[in-house]
Amino acid sequence: MHILILLAHGSKRKESNLEIESLAKKIELFKLKEFEVVMPAFLEFAKPSITEAIDKCAVIGATKVTLLPYFLSAGVHITKDIPTEVEKSSQQNPNLKIKIADYFGSRDEIAEILVKTALNSR
Amino acid sequence: MHILILLAHGSKRKESNLEIESLAKKIELFKLKEFEVVMPAFLEFAKPSITEAIDKCAVIGATKVTLLPYFLSAGVHITKDIPTEVEKSSQQNPNLKIKIADYFGSRDEIAEILVKTALNSR
Repeated sequence: MHILILLAHGSKRKESNLEIESLAKKIELFKLKEFEVVMPAFLEFAKPSITEAIDKCAVIGATKVTLLPYFLSAGVHITKDIPTEVEKSSQQNPNLKIKIADYFGSRDEIAEILVKTALNSR
Repeated sequence: MHILILLAHGSKRKESNLEIESLAKKIELFKLKEFEVVMPAFLEFAKPSITEAIDKCAVIGATKVTLLPYFLSAGVHITKDIPTEVEKSSQQNPNLKIKIADYFGSRDEIAEILVKTALNSR
């Protein structure tokens, strides 16, 4: 079983974390054959953490996990914090293949969506 | 003159802030008739701040400013910090029409782009 973890920063504001949970559900509704389960995880301020989410994946029988960082730019979280956490989890779960996907902000479509957002809000 | 400010969180990592500057330039290259200039601004860790960027808009002759928050979810920055900063700048620049656009993460296309990112990284 291959699980997709949607990894967000996490917020002190509960509603913001609920947005991420909804987004994970929305992605699961795509019913991608590549990912049987989509679950949210958070770097800070909310649960589950990366470690907790990956442990849960192992418990429910995943063999592969793809961690998708829902971050806009390659700051310290992308270059250091997330890889460090994943490395720890990887050692705890040696039978699990864990991969970190490109971060969301690396996508080319973003400028175009920003333009649409700006024009929509005039 | 109508100026679009691409407002990002800002990072301790310089390269991450440079990404935002590049993105602002990329949006400017769309040569939208609605926005004569596109400039970056940062909430934390980088310059210009919201206040500095809006002051600059006034100095170079803008009559309208649209602030586009490049944030993924409606956390404290969106609900409180940004409106507070904008309110201050508004009082300092009473002749400038300042509008805050929807935040980037409110766009419907995001789930689909996340799916593409995940599939691309298998």
